[in-house]
Amino acid sequence: MKNAISVEQLSHELQNSSRSALSKAITLVESSNEEHRKLAQNLIDTILPYSGKSIRIGITGVPGVGKSTFIEKLGLLAIKNGKKVAVLAIDPSSNVNKGSILGDKTRMEELAKEENAFIRPTPSSGFLGGIASSTYQSILLCETAGYDFILIETVGVGQSEVMVNDLCDVFLFLTVSNTGDELQGIKRGIMEMADIIFINKSDDLTKNNRDIIDSKTDLIRAIQLLPQKYSFWKTPVISGSALNNINIEELYYTILKFIEKLNDNSLFSQNRKHKTEKRFESLLQYLILEKIQSLQHKNKEYQYLFQQISEGEISEFRACEHLLNKLKI
Amino acid sequence: MKNAISVEQLSHELQNSSRSALSKAITLVESSNEEHRKLAQNLIDTILPYSGKSIRIGITGVPGVGKSTFIEKLGLLAIKNGKKVAVLAIDPSSNVNKGSILGDKTRMEELAKEENAFIRPTPSSGFLGGIASSTYQSILLCETAGYDFILIETVGVGQSEVMVNDLCDVFLFLTVSNTGDELQGIKRGIMEMADIIFINKSDDLTKNNRDIIDSKTDLIRAIQLLPQKYSFWKTPVISGSALNNINIEELYYTILKFIEKLNDNSLFSQNRKHKTEKRFESLLQYLILEKIQSLQHKNKEYQYLFQQISEGEISEFRACEHLLNKLKI
Repeated sequence: MKNAISVEQLSHELQNSSRSALSKAITLVESSNEEHRKLAQNLIDTILPYSGKSIRIGITGVPGVGKSTFIEKLGLLAIKNGKKVAVLAIDPSSNVNKGSILGDKTRMEELAKEENAFIRPTPSSGFLGGIASSTYQSILLCETAGYDFILIETVGVGQSEVMVNDLCDVFLFLTVSNTGDELQGIKRGIMEMADIIFINKSDDLTKNNRDIIDSKTDLIRAIQLLPQKYSFWKTPVISGSALNNINIEELYYTILKFIEKLNDNSLFSQNRKHKTEKRFESLLQYLILEKIQSLQHKNKEYQYLFQQISEGEISEFRACEHLLNKLKI
Repeated sequence: MKNAISVEQLSHELQNSSRSALSKAITLVESSNEEHRKLAQNLIDTILPYSGKSIRIGITGVPGVGKSTFIEKLGLLAIKNGKKVAVLAIDPSSNVNKGSILGDKTRMEELAKEENAFIRPTPSSGFLGGIASSTYQSILLCETAGYDFILIETVGVGQSEVMVNDLCDVFLFLTVSNTGDELQGIKRGIMEMADIIFINKSDDLTKNNRDIIDSKTDLIRAIQLLPQKYSFWKTPVISGSALNNINIEELYYTILKFIEKLNDNSLFSQNRKHKTEKRFESLLQYLILEKIQSLQHKNKEYQYLFQQISEGEISEFRACEHLLNKLKI
């Protein structure tokens, strides 16, 4: 960000699919610097009419399930089919230290070499509302640069999946056989969100046959017990192997079929509209939180109230009430 | 809530350790009804001076790790040592369906029979900010009713653990051997928060000896790589078995020792103060969010802006900017 950035120029270069412009633009929307943020918002205003034309694919699964390999193979297949593929990765896993497990990965080497692929690991510390907002803007930027498939990867940690689900058109859940995922309540929320489930690492169909079939049966049974999102779509469970390219093609066409079904039922744009509402709400919340945090260090009322709570003089709820009254919210 | 509730009477009964008053009061603070909320806040105002005197213990671990049995045995031991024990359980795991895996459990049967135990599973749907607030108020109510140990249970799903960590004085992480928890980045945030780690289901020391020792060694090694919260406390890793009451006593005394160390370093109340600040912030955020949500259905500006976002006329960020300007936030 050393050189002055012209929004017009960036926008122009993005529309010409410049990778370096895309990188720069994403850095801009990820910045918390006030000046950068203004530029970023001007840029988004400019590119908005050119965005929206991709299929946004959310991918989740716990670490070790093979997400990188899966995304690489899915991305390569899409490219083979004439698509341009962007990969955005979100990892809010470490709270105390704000570290990123995606750190210095040299993952997806093959995909990274492709001219029609763009990979961006997002070191996403901070609030989910902020991450959701910058990721969404990154999606719009990728779309402006002509990417047809946007793969948004996250790790399996609750809230971040809800967030990614609100960013995408189709949500994939990756698992492996015999993890007990199908039995654990912890995965229930994710299974309810999933549009397609892929049992990865189902390589050796002769050797692990029994396990794989059992896992698949268990998952299908679990899905039947859950409320379905759509009357026209029963979440398919596909077993395969990213490493050995087994059933990646089936998965690819299942995604396309799902999108087609959504369109047939006029739900593609309706879903986006519904998710926009949720994101709008969470962005509002995030921006208000930012204001509150800046108050903390400046506002005397805030500090006085906080003092009183700390000493047990008033309850947190009362303090909030006072403050909101003062702020006229 | 059919009968009119007198705050004075409830407060009086709470101070006399009435279990039914405690149940009623918790139902009140959990209610989203406007009238109930007012009563609840009056009640909290009244009982505030009588609260604060317990040890608040947060307990987390993925489903299947044996949390119920562990809490039951720890609770029974505390009661044997003359303490009164309250158990609050939080489960925000299912998002789409808002169901609760803690639903109709007949867990902790032995503990439930004890006169000095109070168990309250909280079917906590809704926003974490709201759950945090009502759980904190439930803690204050339990303290007023004379409970010395408040055990706050949650499932291992990211954000809810951060929340529980902000409610408690000591945070326990339950695991079992050979889950790979120690190796998975997903658990890193939790390990950083943990004050004590318990490897449950380490029953048969002869049979599983190798596994248990390996897991313990791996965990200790992982902890050494993480930043420590306190110079005077290296997170202990205790292996044992809740089912067969192995090392529960050691764990109990480790908790007491940790609290003693915090007090020695003047950190017990300082930690509470710090966590109060975080909760205050999240409560403010939650209450503002509520206001925003009520706006949605009433505010024309909101609806107009939302329409514009949906149609791609303006960006979400711009819409938020407009709305916050209008609201003078």
